[in-house]
Amino acid sequence: MTHTVISSATKEVVIGFDRPFVMIGERINPTGRKLLAEEMKNGDFSRVEADALAQVAAGAHMLDVNAGIPLADEPALLARAIQLVQGVTDVPLSIDSSIIEALEAGLAVYQGKPLVNSVTGEDEQMERVLPLVAKYGAAVVAISNDETGISVDPDVRFAVAQKIVRRASDYGIPACDIVVDPLVMPIGAMGTAGRQVFALLRRLVTELKVNTTCGASNVSFGLPARNNITGTFLAMAISNGMTSAIMNPLHPEVKAMVMAADVLAGNDQDCAAWIRANRDPAAAGGAREGRAGGGRRARQGQ
Amino acid sequence: MTHTVISSATKEVVIGFDRPFVMIGERINPTGRKLLAEEMKNGDFSRVEADALAQVAAGAHMLDVNAGIPLADEPALLARAIQLVQGVTDVPLSIDSSIIEALEAGLAVYQGKPLVNSVTGEDEQMERVLPLVAKYGAAVVAISNDETGISVDPDVRFAVAQKIVRRASDYGIPACDIVVDPLVMPIGAMGTAGRQVFALLRRLVTELKVNTTCGASNVSFGLPARNNITGTFLAMAISNGMTSAIMNPLHPEVKAMVMAADVLAGNDQDCAAWIRANRDPAAAGGAREGRAGGGRRARQGQ
Repeated sequence: MTHTVISSATKEVVIGFDRPFVMIGERINPTGRKLLAEEMKNGDFSRVEADALAQVAAGAHMLDVNAGIPLADEPALLARAIQLVQGVTDVPLSIDSSIIEALEAGLAVYQGKPLVNSVTGEDEQMERVLPLVAKYGAAVVAISNDETGISVDPDVRFAVAQKIVRRASDYGIPACDIVVDPLVMPIGAMGTAGRQVFALLRRLVTELKVNTTCGASNVSFGLPARNNITGTFLAMAISNGMTSAIMNPLHPEVKAMVMAADVLAGNDQDCAAWIRANRDPAAAGGAREGRAGGGRRARQGQ
Repeated sequence: MTHTVISSATKEVVIGFDRPFVMIGERINPTGRKLLAEEMKNGDFSRVEADALAQVAAGAHMLDVNAGIPLADEPALLARAIQLVQGVTDVPLSIDSSIIEALEAGLAVYQGKPLVNSVTGEDEQMERVLPLVAKYGAAVVAISNDETGISVDPDVRFAVAQKIVRRASDYGIPACDIVVDPLVMPIGAMGTAGRQVFALLRRLVTELKVNTTCGASNVSFGLPARNNITGTFLAMAISNGMTSAIMNPLHPEVKAMVMAADVLAGNDQDCAAWIRANRDPAAAGGAREGRAGGGRRARQGQ
């Protein structure tokens, strides 16, 4: 059973097929958040800290931290954000940047074993990111695209993931420390996006035996009632083997569907988390009580 | 591609892997509904008609009709219910009884090609139900249990389904007219119930190539916030190949998840049904608007 262990100084999170789904809070990211970008650039990290606390309170097991602001000193901002977030929460972090210097600055200050987000299958990128991952003993998100872009063929994307796992091994990084992102496209733009990802997930789980993650909210981009699409997507992905996602735990419908999927995948022992979360209907996060009774098929069990 | 065609006098419904999920309304069933049972027994079918209309208005593609009332004349009640429901709606029906005489009475009055619910893998039951199904040119729900009961081993349940398909073939009933019910147990009582059903579904779809159905609400029996469990279960089941369910379309969360799963399975062309249902938030059935924007992973697509 593949277990990817991520940690802070005091807390460990295990991503695995036999574990509850790991929710990685997506909110600490200035992309598309002008106010947050402006504040971070000016050295004001109060919203970063508030977002960290809110997401953990909502149930995030980990937090993704991104400081990608055009024309800003991303390495300094990312390192500062990580230190501040680690100062107010104890959940492990995902250090998120496409800039190698920012990843390095983040790794240098991080307490524990982080998830590095991310490396693609591009040769030059692998040669720069993987040595860093190895040096700091981190785990890494492997995104299944390469120099040729994102293939619509799940088999090509599988091959890219396989290439990253092999290359990582050359650097001494075990497969259990690779979390593959199969790349989720907006379903409104490409009707086959869901089927492709589910097929790819099954291959990643059964053949490559790696843990997986994704930027979940992408799938519903441009559609109405998008939280229901995102939550339903996650439930279907979990059923095909997905073990974590970068998502917004503050959306109650999405969180409820992830928790329900944990119950149905048999990863919520005795339904304890579900019952605890829904004992008080106000705490259920969009989960409303159904009618009692049922038993339409009761005769079958007799 | 397996297509199971069910019809009324004027309307056809096709169950298939490349089709939107078929929602079969479960409400016309006196089991656990004392008032309805009492009314039906006394010849008052007004609630049956109202339940039929309400479920069709809520989006049910078919309706299950059951008249199982202890000590009542079930054949007469079932035939009457079917005639009345066919008088007020044009959706095809599932004729639901464990009593052979009631199935026969229902088949005799039915206009179109119904779904007979159900036959098990018990030899005596097959010998009585399958000739009827053949005689009336109906389709039939095959429940994967037999004389030995319901096995917890998905492979045993697969073998029972396979046995029913073979026996049906002896009576001239093609596999496309068999809709297998893999039997869904309450997840609160058996934590492995979900995984078992998903594994069984994959075998039924890929090896036996049959359409499938289930009594969906059973899965959440005894748990709080059960509509979220039922809806999430259906999304996961759809992702593993389930093509129809006997369910309550009046539960907005459940219906929203089924519709979202159709989008994600690529069976809602251009997301048209989803967009139509959610254009007016009041009509969305529990589907609330998420925040706009997103784009966390936008850089991947560039």
